Amino acid sequence: MYRIGVDIGGTNIALGLLDPAWELVAKASVPFARGGQKVAAIIAEQVAGLLAQAGIGQDRLASIGVAVPGSITPDGSLVLHAYNLGFHHEPLRERIQAHFPQIPVALANDADAATLAELYKGALRGCKTAALYTIGTGIGGGMIINGHLFHGGRSNGVEPGHVVLVDEGEACTCGVKGCVEAYCSATALIREARRAMAAKQDSLLFARTKGDPDAMTAKLAIDCAKDGDAAALDVFHSYIEKLGSAIASVLNMLDLERVAIGGGVSGAGEFLFAPLRQDVDKKCFFENHGDVVPAQMGNAAGMVGAAMLYEHERKGSPLSQL
Amino acid sequence: MYRIGVDIGGTNIALGLLDPAWELVAKASVPFARGGQKVAAIIAEQVAGLLAQAGIGQDRLASIGVAVPGSITPDGSLVLHAYNLGFHHEPLRERIQAHFPQIPVALANDADAATLAELYKGALRGCKTAALYTIGTGIGGGMIINGHLFHGGRSNGVEPGHVVLVDEGEACTCGVKGCVEAYCSATALIREARRAMAAKQDSLLFARTKGDPDAMTAKLAIDCAKDGDAAALDVFHSYIEKLGSAIASVLNMLDLERVAIGGGVSGAGEFLFAPLRQDVDKKCFFENHGDVVPAQMGNAAGMVGAAMLYEHERKGSPLSQL
Repeated sequence: MYRIGVDIGGTNIALGLLDPAWELVAKASVPFARGGQKVAAIIAEQVAGLLAQAGIGQDRLASIGVAVPGSITPDGSLVLHAYNLGFHHEPLRERIQAHFPQIPVALANDADAATLAELYKGALRGCKTAALYTIGTGIGGGMIINGHLFHGGRSNGVEPGHVVLVDEGEACTCGVKGCVEAYCSATALIREARRAMAAKQDSLLFARTKGDPDAMTAKLAIDCAKDGDAAALDVFHSYIEKLGSAIASVLNMLDLERVAIGGGVSGAGEFLFAPLRQDVDKKCFFENHGDVVPAQMGNAAGMVGAAMLYEHERKGSPLSQL
Repeated sequence: MYRIGVDIGGTNIALGLLDPAWELVAKASVPFARGGQKVAAIIAEQVAGLLAQAGIGQDRLASIGVAVPGSITPDGSLVLHAYNLGFHHEPLRERIQAHFPQIPVALANDADAATLAELYKGALRGCKTAALYTIGTGIGGGMIINGHLFHGGRSNGVEPGHVVLVDEGEACTCGVKGCVEAYCSATALIREARRAMAAKQDSLLFARTKGDPDAMTAKLAIDCAKDGDAAALDVFHSYIEKLGSAIASVLNMLDLERVAIGGGVSGAGEFLFAPLRQDVDKKCFFENHGDVVPAQMGNAAGMVGAAMLYEHERKGSPLSQL
């Protein structure tokens, strides 16, 4: 049987058709449009297009999974809040289901979906208890405990970005001071690079942005560090030290087998991961602690994980043979 | 059926006999003595004494559970390391089992045992996903996830005291700087009270210790705060702010239903818990976050939880009707 995975973002809706071996055989991306009914109609149209493209009948479609950047009610029926999509108490599952009366539809948080994709096809393969941290504008996270997606004890999900790392430190978007997100997000890296640039006008950070703070990106900051710029290296080492504390903390708290790190910053590869592993190792309480690795599923993670959702949630872990 | 719970500490071995309703009907406490064989012999003798005292035959004893301040191998057979007891790779289960061939013997970490006691008879009753933090010289912790004791993803246990709270902050006993334990243990409270006492010689903190740092205790510091001493109140409020960040962090990370706090410091009651709840509420990411409550089982927690261990671990959660 085939599965459809949908990843709804504030800019685009990405859709993929996965074959029985969970390989992507067709995909599409269309602009997001506001309104639950509109989104459901777009998805219905695109799903039909993907099936036609692959020559697959609806009778060979086992499930449709949909990931959103927001919270889902415990029964999986409503999008409680997805601020970037303007969804609040939105009955998205039912709206999509109306287009596909015979096919099970499942909803998930996008970080949870990405975590499933890493569990079955990516960096967390073979783990029973592990986490994915996705580093972008903020920090998203998903957790697998005893082989299953962990939705939190009260079904609110998990927010590893809002663990305090520097009590009373930098302001976080959530209103608290010093969260992991305020030190380990790409936004935080950019903030520190801007500060360094302003302080050191003879730096590469300054030269490559022509002194324009708006020109600073995480990639530019990391590239300056790779090129040996002292100011950029200071920023990058401080960043790694903070990220190392955040990862060691979750390893100490839960004794995870593995933490995968995704998002743009993880593209720095071993330049990031080699010193990060050393830092984490120094700070781990248990000698035989879990490891920290790059995520493997990239931008497709949410879509692929969404396609896995229904079977993971409703039937236990039947994908574990992957 | 009756059960025996044993809590082995570096000073005393405490034993209790629990009746079929899990009520303590007899108890004993004897000095600890070094060596696994010796400890097993002491336990055997004391168990016989407790049974005789209660007029119960060995045939009515369902299990013996033993809690130690250390790590246990995943199969529950060896004490891997219990530094305070001098146990390393100690086959304690087998040694005790030799005295009671017909009765199942189970080993656990003492924080895990205390958490079970709170789950079935104390502050965590009715929870499926919750944690116990025990605040003493250090910070011990246990976690319940989906109704079961969570031993960590690699069976090392959980160490919520070694989550970084103030990155690069005060030195922790584990070698890392800024752990929860370095700010929220009784030891940390005493450290801060000593500093305040040295800085403010007109304080109650100074008067009641006669300026002797060695006379400072957590209780004395809290009592000075209760009596309105400005220096002690500063110390206590900072302590609460740190503890609030630590508790909010675990609530944000795992969306727990409840966190119970035990150990000497929790004896401060609402003087601690009322401001702590306010602080935690301010820092929680989820509006409908879990609550923070005093532990209820006191010093008996390890012993009572040890008695529950065998049935919780081997038979699922049959105690949940308690």
